[in-house]
Amino acid sequence: MSLIEELAKNASKAAKQLAILSTEQKNTVLKALAAALRAQSEEILKANQQDLDAAKQNQLSAAMVDRLTLTTQRIDDMAVGVEQIAQLPDPVGTTRELGRQPSGILVRKMRVPLGVICMIYEARPNVTADAGALCFKSGNGVILRGGKEALNSSLAIAKVMHQVLNQFGLPEELITVVPDPDRALLLELMQQKDDIDLIIPRGGEGLIEFVTNNSAIPVIQHFKGVCHLYVDADADLDIAMPLLLNGKTQRTGVCNALECLLVHRDIAGAFLPQVSAALEGAQVKINACEKAANYFNTVKVLSDDEFGEEYLDLEIAIAVVDDFNGALAHIDRFGSHHTEVICTKNQKTAALFQQCVDASVVMVNASSRFSDGGQLGLGAEIGIATTKLHAYGPMGLESLTTEKYLVEGEGQIRE
Amino acid sequence: MSLIEELAKNASKAAKQLAILSTEQKNTVLKALAAALRAQSEEILKANQQDLDAAKQNQLSAAMVDRLTLTTQRIDDMAVGVEQIAQLPDPVGTTRELGRQPSGILVRKMRVPLGVICMIYEARPNVTADAGALCFKSGNGVILRGGKEALNSSLAIAKVMHQVLNQFGLPEELITVVPDPDRALLLELMQQKDDIDLIIPRGGEGLIEFVTNNSAIPVIQHFKGVCHLYVDADADLDIAMPLLLNGKTQRTGVCNALECLLVHRDIAGAFLPQVSAALEGAQVKINACEKAANYFNTVKVLSDDEFGEEYLDLEIAIAVVDDFNGALAHIDRFGSHHTEVICTKNQKTAALFQQCVDASVVMVNASSRFSDGGQLGLGAEIGIATTKLHAYGPMGLESLTTEKYLVEGEGQIRE
Repeated sequence: MSLIEELAKNASKAAKQLAILSTEQKNTVLKALAAALRAQSEEILKANQQDLDAAKQNQLSAAMVDRLTLTTQRIDDMAVGVEQIAQLPDPVGTTRELGRQPSGILVRKMRVPLGVICMIYEARPNVTADAGALCFKSGNGVILRGGKEALNSSLAIAKVMHQVLNQFGLPEELITVVPDPDRALLLELMQQKDDIDLIIPRGGEGLIEFVTNNSAIPVIQHFKGVCHLYVDADADLDIAMPLLLNGKTQRTGVCNALECLLVHRDIAGAFLPQVSAALEGAQVKINACEKAANYFNTVKVLSDDEFGEEYLDLEIAIAVVDDFNGALAHIDRFGSHHTEVICTKNQKTAALFQQCVDASVVMVNASSRFSDGGQLGLGAEIGIATTKLHAYGPMGLESLTTEKYLVEGEGQIRE
Repeated sequence: MSLIEELAKNASKAAKQLAILSTEQKNTVLKALAAALRAQSEEILKANQQDLDAAKQNQLSAAMVDRLTLTTQRIDDMAVGVEQIAQLPDPVGTTRELGRQPSGILVRKMRVPLGVICMIYEARPNVTADAGALCFKSGNGVILRGGKEALNSSLAIAKVMHQVLNQFGLPEELITVVPDPDRALLLELMQQKDDIDLIIPRGGEGLIEFVTNNSAIPVIQHFKGVCHLYVDADADLDIAMPLLLNGKTQRTGVCNALECLLVHRDIAGAFLPQVSAALEGAQVKINACEKAANYFNTVKVLSDDEFGEEYLDLEIAIAVVDDFNGALAHIDRFGSHHTEVICTKNQKTAALFQQCVDASVVMVNASSRFSDGGQLGLGAEIGIATTKLHAYGPMGLESLTTEKYLVEGEGQIRE
């Protein structure tokens, strides 16, 4: 058996032990894990320093080095994250009744873990702790394959996790960091469909495409976030402006940032001069349709085909639409099924927008930046799905489970 | 654009119109469809006769010809099925609240259709009507690619559906029968991932493997049904015997038939002589472990590795297990994640069995033959998933939908 086959088989075997632990047992382990992360932060920082030294030698970008860097504070943040996961309600074992059937059998559904989750992600050591804790709480074994630049840090964090698992008589194989960053092993990992139930890639579009095209295991896909704010004719402009600025400028490199503003033509004359002043003040680069462009001093005019860009920067696209249906059509064409926002005082328009827009999160009068597991009340998220199978949108603990049917009878047979 | 690309694009476009129809509108269409199937049964029977003539020429097996054959009664059954789907609750548009968050935003989830479902199935004309109606009710466009032997029948049924859709001003492309059975087109169909959201193959293991290996679109997999009945030491044998006979003999060629009986060793001496008499009376061929074999006159002795067979016939495997854990280990090794049954009077053992057994349907004191959408209260089923992603077990209308997040605020922005 190859290293990868063995590692997948062991994870699958270990996961069966975890699936039947009580919520209390799982929470006790998680709290001990948080304490151990804090207690052993020095060892983790030492391993992190090795990764940082290599990063310097390999001239990694400042942004990558920032994501890679651990500090006592960041390790404490990880521990707080693990404690928060311990506080969250446990979906595993919860049941709902489908009712007694004409035959007399009672039918229920019970939430159960998926089995083994494989996370494929870039060089972010904190994901190792987050994903490990989320998968543990939801009763799943996890195989973590992070970016090679963070391998020493990830292995050090995993070592702490293994000590805690050992302390509670649980198998280390519940949380496995792939120790070898070889790409051939990654490809082999994606073929272990008998032992791994789901792959969640976190990273750029290229990584998602690579995993999707090479995996024999179902993949949760998160392609991109081209999020729109539609300012309706009935919008309250005192609300619209903060939504626009917060969505575009609070943090630009994230998938729930705004990339496009749509304005109803009846309100364009009132709103766009304000937008021009505010966005120019915030040094946002403007790309606009011909009608909208008139309101801006410095602007690149976009043709109809040039919308749909994910800028991930202080840059935005702006279009004037003729009416509500024009906004829907624009979003339908250029949206990425991530997050779409309407600003309106008209409740009927708001409800219709929420019904018609095909996106995983549809908001009324709130910033697109709330589209994140923590802000939506999931506590923590393991990823965001922009495809609809199994999960759609931010994924918390419940998305890491499935439901089986439970049937109880008194000897009923089928006629 | 090729035929297949065009057909997938049109289905996707049409599905957007369907997604926002009210439940009442959809039910009205379904009732009209049932009436039209009855009114035009002669035309459907005429097309079916063409398929039957070809089947005779091509010397299809009696079982295939039976599945292919339509009669006035069978068309009426289809119409009744469509009417039942009209009666079922509509999952689309239902919401559940996740609560108001610390930021003040209100978070809900709303069920929405998946988009376009592609059904790939064998020569069963009735699936054309069933799947068409289920997908319609759940707000999804559907592309039906059935076995070529039933193509004329399927096209005739689709023609009736299209007339009804036209009558209500709805696009015909909501329900599309692929008019050409060419295998190259099937392969092309499975690549239309931008327009098709889910593929559901219905048929033998070979078909499922073929689709899984060639599809760029997520596939709901239903591999096989190796269902066990475990008769516990605390079983009521007056219940166990009917469960065994009903599970094994009521219908043998189906995935929810029993394929293996496990008996606790403490009760083997009392139960297996009864089993021997009953199964020999029912002409069931016996395969058994060494311990169990002693109780049977004619028996093939199985080694430890030879269990796990899906007989789909009057044939069964029987093993004596040392205890509850022995039964779990056997099911874990040889089960197919379909349906598993325990017979016991001990409620604690029953609950532990339901918790620990990793199968989509876990039953206590009820026949495995109840593992079917109709019997479980789903009304109708579009398939059974033995993998856990998106759906697990019999799939009804809810399994053809997903949930999006709805957020409402009063201008909240993220700090």
